[in-house]
Amino acid sequence: MVASEVRALFAVASRPEIVSLAGGMPNVAALPLDQIGDLAKDVISEEGAAALQYGSAQGDPVLREQICDYMTLEGVRSVPDDVIVTVGSQQALDLITRVFVDPGDIVLTEAPTYVTAINTFAAFQADIRHVSMDDEGVDADELDRALTEAAKAGRTVKFFYTIPNFQNPAGITMSAERRARVMEVCERHDVLIVEDNPYGLLRYDGEPQPTLYSQGEGNVIYLGSLSKTLSPGLRIGWALAPSAVRAKLVLAAESAMLSHSTFNQLVVRRYLNTFPWREQIKTFNSMYGERRDALLGALNTMMPDGCTWTRPEGGFFVWATLPEGIDAKAMLPRAVNHRVAYVPGTGFFADGRGRDSMRLSFCYPTPEQIREGVRRLVGAIEGEMDLRDTFGPAMATPTEGSQAPTPDLP
Amino acid sequence: MVASEVRALFAVASRPEIVSLAGGMPNVAALPLDQIGDLAKDVISEEGAAALQYGSAQGDPVLREQICDYMTLEGVRSVPDDVIVTVGSQQALDLITRVFVDPGDIVLTEAPTYVTAINTFAAFQADIRHVSMDDEGVDADELDRALTEAAKAGRTVKFFYTIPNFQNPAGITMSAERRARVMEVCERHDVLIVEDNPYGLLRYDGEPQPTLYSQGEGNVIYLGSLSKTLSPGLRIGWALAPSAVRAKLVLAAESAMLSHSTFNQLVVRRYLNTFPWREQIKTFNSMYGERRDALLGALNTMMPDGCTWTRPEGGFFVWATLPEGIDAKAMLPRAVNHRVAYVPGTGFFADGRGRDSMRLSFCYPTPEQIREGVRRLVGAIEGEMDLRDTFGPAMATPTEGSQAPTPDLP
Repeated sequence: MVASEVRALFAVASRPEIVSLAGGMPNVAALPLDQIGDLAKDVISEEGAAALQYGSAQGDPVLREQICDYMTLEGVRSVPDDVIVTVGSQQALDLITRVFVDPGDIVLTEAPTYVTAINTFAAFQADIRHVSMDDEGVDADELDRALTEAAKAGRTVKFFYTIPNFQNPAGITMSAERRARVMEVCERHDVLIVEDNPYGLLRYDGEPQPTLYSQGEGNVIYLGSLSKTLSPGLRIGWALAPSAVRAKLVLAAESAMLSHSTFNQLVVRRYLNTFPWREQIKTFNSMYGERRDALLGALNTMMPDGCTWTRPEGGFFVWATLPEGIDAKAMLPRAVNHRVAYVPGTGFFADGRGRDSMRLSFCYPTPEQIREGVRRLVGAIEGEMDLRDTFGPAMATPTEGSQAPTPDLP
Repeated sequence: MVASEVRALFAVASRPEIVSLAGGMPNVAALPLDQIGDLAKDVISEEGAAALQYGSAQGDPVLREQICDYMTLEGVRSVPDDVIVTVGSQQALDLITRVFVDPGDIVLTEAPTYVTAINTFAAFQADIRHVSMDDEGVDADELDRALTEAAKAGRTVKFFYTIPNFQNPAGITMSAERRARVMEVCERHDVLIVEDNPYGLLRYDGEPQPTLYSQGEGNVIYLGSLSKTLSPGLRIGWALAPSAVRAKLVLAAESAMLSHSTFNQLVVRRYLNTFPWREQIKTFNSMYGERRDALLGALNTMMPDGCTWTRPEGGFFVWATLPEGIDAKAMLPRAVNHRVAYVPGTGFFADGRGRDSMRLSFCYPTPEQIREGVRRLVGAIEGEMDLRDTFGPAMATPTEGSQAPTPDLP
């Protein structure tokens, strides 16, 4: 399937009769909408001359202070001047890539990794190289070897990009021991780390792990976001970076957009100042935790032998791997016929891998819909297994390169 | 002065005791803030689940329809599918540059041109070449020669970037005859035109001129914005481009930010749907027209012999050129001592020119403040003239390249 076919399929997948386990959209209807509406109105009435005016490219200074407070929940100590507010953390990643990556530079990522990160790195012609993951996160020895080989070959590795908490798409969290090892490897090779952490506060069980940023010495750029803990429609994310890096990002942001929406920043400022937002996150965690349990329970009960999947302690995603000879990408049209959708694993690799896997999102559908979705998915998988047993394993078809799902599937 | 000195100076210039003729900030306090506040509240209460959710990278489809309607006021006929909504028209320009410009490609612009456009082109390593302007706009013969010479030298010209209405910074509007000539030249050389038109509806006298887009055959990308006719703090701009180009811009926007703020788009949608926004533009035009008249009147009355300036029919800016031997950039600290600020012309050239000129903005200060500002400016200029007459013309000092004013000075 080519990119346009994938998009067409996802257009079909958004029909109400289809249970979509594809979309990574937070459940924003769970927010107190009337109160947020009042808040937005007050921002205009009381601060309208500022809210409707150009702001600075670095972002509102009071909001940046609040972001520093917010990050203390993750054990990050920071100063507002090291923060730049961006249009979602996606823009932060894009600006970093724009500032740092020259064509042909290597960017190391986990295997798999976030689809839109791949697209951004590819847009700036990076040489994207995946490093394997296990249950504890990226394989630190393989990371070490990859860095050593690059150095030997005279190649530049610009940074190692990681999503250490409840990774999108794999659901895996980097353990404390692995974090310490990754820090040691990256420091020894003097390579920058980009730590992308939009899900860190969406933890349903287990213990929070210390951020890489808090273990680093100016060699980590930390990306944060309010998209999953407040709202993606406000597009408020940020980069936390050493001063000289942050200054370059601000210059890049000026060219990229002049300045972020002052209105959105002031709305978020007021929200963080006046709402019980920590309670709201707990509310979200309770809801998302129930959905995660529904998905894992259904997978446990219903999935055929030969399927395996990750068990995330938080976040939005489970990564499922199919039995030998089943191709998740080829299966997608047939799954949609079964009225269920997922994201085939191929979108999350730059090198064509991932045909045997899929990302399952549990954030948006209800527990009941999730169970029904798994039922339908199992029907599709069993159908594929029959096809395989009759006709042989799915033929490997050439990939078209990275094929991003539609934008409502972050 | 280096970039940091310029910024420090503008920080001083934003003090209340200084009349700033530097900032190009629209006067948003003139908007009906309470009503806009109610509108924002209704968007959240009634459409909150959508407003607070991810959207598509191309932008809200209903807003795109409304943008097409809005553009008919400029004589542009278009379809929503050819529109992409961006974070201000700055982002549209940035995406175009990102998609089209390879390092070393030539980008032709007017002389002078918009500062942040220069920064963006430079960020993507374009070879920026200015083409002279006269009272009727860019010199079409010189444009023709520049294109011919580039072709002879085997160099790629990616596009000609123009701000044909009340140009920022020169205030000049391209005449109808000149537009026809520019279209002929660009079509003959098969070069793309990027037509940036944020000020077109802010006309105080004279007649509107047909857009280049409406005279083109798929060789013009048109950029529009609501920053000056509604609010810059909402960051709503757009590109209108032939379908294949628009598709590339959407892919670039996905990498750049995933999607624009749905909330802002729905607020603007509701505003355009329910407010007498054409009346609001008339209100703005009356206010800005009065300020333009105050500035031109004061310049006429008070400026020393040897100074010249443009007489814009709309927009926000007058471009003033100083007497022989006076350096606007060197003069800026002394002007600030006289408690007035402007933007030295050097920011608006990629090649070091512009020391003899300055951009004067009349959008933000009141008519009284404008007159006082000119009084102080004249004091500074006369002081410089005395210095010159005593010590000789200002010494040419090497420039640091493009030095963007602070972000509140678009």
